[in-house]
Amino acid sequence: MQTLFHDHHGADPRLLLLSAEEQSMRLSRVRAALDGKADAVLLRDNANIYYVCGRVFSGYVYIPAVEDAQPIYFVRRPNHLAGEQVDLIRKPEEIPAILARRGLKAPGCIALELGALSFDAATRLMKVFGDAEVVDATPVMRCARAVKTPYEIEKLKASGRKQTLIYERIPKLYREGMTDVELQIEIERALRLEGCLGQFRVAGDEMELFMGNVLTGDNADNPSPYDFAMGGAGLDPSIPVGANGSMIRPHKPVMVDVNGNFTGYMTDMTRCYSDGEPEELTRKANECSRRICRELAQLGRPGAEAKALYKRAVEIAEEEGFGPNFMGYRSHAGFVGHGVGIEVNELPVIAPRSRDVLEAGNVIALEPKFVLPGIGAVGIENTYVVRADGPMECITLAREEITDLD
Amino acid sequence: MQTLFHDHHGADPRLLLLSAEEQSMRLSRVRAALDGKADAVLLRDNANIYYVCGRVFSGYVYIPAVEDAQPIYFVRRPNHLAGEQVDLIRKPEEIPAILARRGLKAPGCIALELGALSFDAATRLMKVFGDAEVVDATPVMRCARAVKTPYEIEKLKASGRKQTLIYERIPKLYREGMTDVELQIEIERALRLEGCLGQFRVAGDEMELFMGNVLTGDNADNPSPYDFAMGGAGLDPSIPVGANGSMIRPHKPVMVDVNGNFTGYMTDMTRCYSDGEPEELTRKANECSRRICRELAQLGRPGAEAKALYKRAVEIAEEEGFGPNFMGYRSHAGFVGHGVGIEVNELPVIAPRSRDVLEAGNVIALEPKFVLPGIGAVGIENTYVVRADGPMECITLAREEITDLD
Repeated sequence: MQTLFHDHHGADPRLLLLSAEEQSMRLSRVRAALDGKADAVLLRDNANIYYVCGRVFSGYVYIPAVEDAQPIYFVRRPNHLAGEQVDLIRKPEEIPAILARRGLKAPGCIALELGALSFDAATRLMKVFGDAEVVDATPVMRCARAVKTPYEIEKLKASGRKQTLIYERIPKLYREGMTDVELQIEIERALRLEGCLGQFRVAGDEMELFMGNVLTGDNADNPSPYDFAMGGAGLDPSIPVGANGSMIRPHKPVMVDVNGNFTGYMTDMTRCYSDGEPEELTRKANECSRRICRELAQLGRPGAEAKALYKRAVEIAEEEGFGPNFMGYRSHAGFVGHGVGIEVNELPVIAPRSRDVLEAGNVIALEPKFVLPGIGAVGIENTYVVRADGPMECITLAREEITDLD
Repeated sequence: MQTLFHDHHGADPRLLLLSAEEQSMRLSRVRAALDGKADAVLLRDNANIYYVCGRVFSGYVYIPAVEDAQPIYFVRRPNHLAGEQVDLIRKPEEIPAILARRGLKAPGCIALELGALSFDAATRLMKVFGDAEVVDATPVMRCARAVKTPYEIEKLKASGRKQTLIYERIPKLYREGMTDVELQIEIERALRLEGCLGQFRVAGDEMELFMGNVLTGDNADNPSPYDFAMGGAGLDPSIPVGANGSMIRPHKPVMVDVNGNFTGYMTDMTRCYSDGEPEELTRKANECSRRICRELAQLGRPGAEAKALYKRAVEIAEEEGFGPNFMGYRSHAGFVGHGVGIEVNELPVIAPRSRDVLEAGNVIALEPKFVLPGIGAVGIENTYVVRADGPMECITLAREEITDLD
């Protein structure tokens, strides 16, 4: 349960839990994405603060656009954090005076997270910076974070290994007569005992999901309000997504897509299981999903267009007769893959109208899935690293066939 | 795992899962809180949509301020929802034309959730409503939701009963030599098997916590970035709060404050456990916490000032010699209680500078807790309903003494 820079038995008083070199790489990415559009970036979103510091705190990180200038950390809580670049504050209105005291000029243009901060929080910060022009830091940070550093990829691979371990153990967690929820609960426990942090971060405030999605039978075709690949009715209309208490039936697929956050970085993996031999159509759909993953992994090279990958996925699905079942049956998800990292919905997005172009260091979850009426959800999901040369590298390595639950 | 209006084995196509009478009560509360300040309220936040519909969907609810006018439901997803007042839309820009088609005048002033919507989402909606003046719907909805209807209180009581059942089972889940995380994982599983939905909703985007907080030993005094009553270092600096893998030591308290969301409505309860007799000081602190709860329950009547309750809690803590330990030792939480309901941090707030005044129907979690250096976190938390007459009614009924884990 330890990470490289953290003694998990105490709260580390160092604010910066990244090596200087690692942080410098990340700041370079932020500055490159900013592309001179502002004099500084001010971050408050937990995911972004974690990206530039290696820890979450309540407060703000001020990053001057000038290369090599050190960030300033305005900390509200916890107040035991210390360091040369740290200033404890109670409210953001204290920021300009501190910048002045540190000899920094007030920014003429500041980038704020307009896609993540509430309207109230953003307008409050705008007042703090008085006459400064404001640009949106949310796309800047999404772009910066879309290409992972080698250290981030190492963290993702570590998550992938642990998640794989649990997926391989799923048949042992199953007992005949279980519902989808009961199996999910045993998987949740196994994940947590292996060090899964439970919570996964999602960009935006519209998506809600607890630890993942286990779907069986017709529940797979219940549409949900959320922009996930698959739906499900859920247990209660207050969180209408995922398992709904359906019995797991012999020879019918159970799709498992559960939380891979072991390191602060998410891997995303889906596999199907079946109590007894699955039907031929089920197996065929799973093989089609595997084929889409394989072909897209070959196409997924630097310079490839995300929308071209999506197009190829649809072509294969149609070629194999699963067009109407692709990414849902009664309603369809509008993508086949998405970036993963600190959040589960990062860039690039593999969708029909995506303008994203793949780069080495992107980490992408591909999830070509099918809903077969009367059968359920079928397909796999893998997380891949885009490499400078060669096809994408898969980092979620559980066996891809439909696994017998016996 | 069923709720009153929901067949959990399928996705109910009715948009409205509240009885007409129940919804009407809630809309009256919204209109009363709006107090004529706008011609209509437009809701998009999941918690607020759930409040006025009894289900979550992706889209908007438009509530004319005029009494008895029916809301209009603009649904993006899931698109199988149907009803006279339902319009399927792809984007909010379609709203004005639909309002016109339905014979509704464009609002001269509209209330938007400026404290919940991102700056980007809010400014987009402002453009949709062109010249309309904008007021903040977030405090309006917080105020409306602070007083629960009888049906909401019934849901809260149902959650409290289930949570109590699990708390009573905790000694059976314990094995000698466990860490805080290991015990927490067994409690999580027991909660989930009893129907806990896992996810709990928190207002604002700064708070993150997975299923609750189990604290033992000095970890209780590790400050966290989040505005919870207690901290803890957590397992990873990406989510630095709660259990950190500390061993549970004999005779030392284990504080359990875990998720009570069984119905879409949260109850909040904390109890302490100990493997073998706790030390005298531990027991004394727990009794002090119980006394604060009892006295505050007596004071908590309609018209009582929230800050007066807080003041009395501090007085008792100081009187019993626990002043420096109250709500933390190295750092202190700035409140002793908070409203609960659809979200875990509702109104009223029981804090020194709170302007809230208690009303019948408020549901309040009181959590006077102490951190004793070298010992750990001690104290209880209960959820109470403010009644028209008499003291507050406790709806979290597990025994309050420190329970032996044997």
